[in-house]
Amino acid sequence: MFQKESFMARMIAAKTRNSVKTRSHILGVAFEEIYRHGFRGASVNSIIDKTELTKGAFFHHFPTKEALGYAIADEILVSLIMDRWVRPLDNYENPLEGISHNFKKIIETTPEEHLGFGCPLNNLVQEMAPEDPVFSKKLNSALEKWIEGIELNLKRAQKRGFLRSGVHLRRLAEFIVMSHEGAFGMVKMLRDRKVFFGLQATLRDYLKTLQI
Amino acid sequence: MFQKESFMARMIAAKTRNSVKTRSHILGVAFEEIYRHGFRGASVNSIIDKTELTKGAFFHHFPTKEALGYAIADEILVSLIMDRWVRPLDNYENPLEGISHNFKKIIETTPEEHLGFGCPLNNLVQEMAPEDPVFSKKLNSALEKWIEGIELNLKRAQKRGFLRSGVHLRRLAEFIVMSHEGAFGMVKMLRDRKVFFGLQATLRDYLKTLQI
Repeated sequence: MFQKESFMARMIAAKTRNSVKTRSHILGVAFEEIYRHGFRGASVNSIIDKTELTKGAFFHHFPTKEALGYAIADEILVSLIMDRWVRPLDNYENPLEGISHNFKKIIETTPEEHLGFGCPLNNLVQEMAPEDPVFSKKLNSALEKWIEGIELNLKRAQKRGFLRSGVHLRRLAEFIVMSHEGAFGMVKMLRDRKVFFGLQATLRDYLKTLQI
Repeated sequence: MFQKESFMARMIAAKTRNSVKTRSHILGVAFEEIYRHGFRGASVNSIIDKTELTKGAFFHHFPTKEALGYAIADEILVSLIMDRWVRPLDNYENPLEGISHNFKKIIETTPEEHLGFGCPLNNLVQEMAPEDPVFSKKLNSALEKWIEGIELNLKRAQKRGFLRSGVHLRRLAEFIVMSHEGAFGMVKMLRDRKVFFGLQATLRDYLKTLQI
């Protein structure tokens, strides 16, 4: 009996692992497709084709396109933001320098093709926030995590004596995140890395005026 | 014969006037609909309903949704940009102050509902630039007129001794336009006029650091 239960438990665990794997495989494929074509422009059939799953298996995980979009906002965008824009700042003694330098590094490593795709968060915000309140709430919470992460780093900069006191930290954090999104949004059309670097350099120069 | 020709000519002129009027009526209605729902989200049938024209009359002017979108980019967006963001700067002795003050005035007069709609140019850029090269070219040219308009004003500011020499004017103009688009894009989701004013104030503070 114990043997049997243990076998059953192992089966269930394996099935769960496979299910988690399939789900995250679908999310990865869908993220790419939506990043390239927008939420409404992305085709569910083309996503299913690329996952190489049956329609049944696919719809078992995500019965609607919305469910897929919401899961991307909750599970992919937040971790992408933290990994790209917030956590790397831990490596800098001066977080203000970190913010400029990390932005520069990301521009340097953005593949040519991706310049024309913009920022995955900004794309969804611009397309879906006014149309779908659930989407809007989820995107809002992703954006909020970014702003909070930057604000915490500004606090750290102030504590360490790199940033002038009297600066409104929340407002500056909003401006920094807005500049990133604005830059991605503008370069999405211009597809010009030089403009991208110019925008980053201007933000860097501004942050320098706030340093002690 | 002369009488008859003159009558014909008057008929043609009247018809042309009506045609121009109808066309601009359609463009106005379509602009509103696309501003609210995005290009792909806007329904041509709903636009036709709101124009109160027959389908035949409508399609005579704009045989496709694309034709409608392109005409909006060429004819509406450019004049909107010039009227809102460039021409008002003529009224300021110091164009740097003009840029901040004009932005503030526009935030103050943006209706509550419009906060959630974003910037008409930015919306189309984010949605359509990667999908449609013709659209992209037209939107690009509208954006370029905005950047050039700001750059000319920065030149004027430098000439009049308000702006430090050595500032890269094109780059600063790109940053200013990017900040406007970024701010509209962020507020589109947050729908928070306080954040909007905060972003404007931060840009103003930055411009002040460049003043003489």
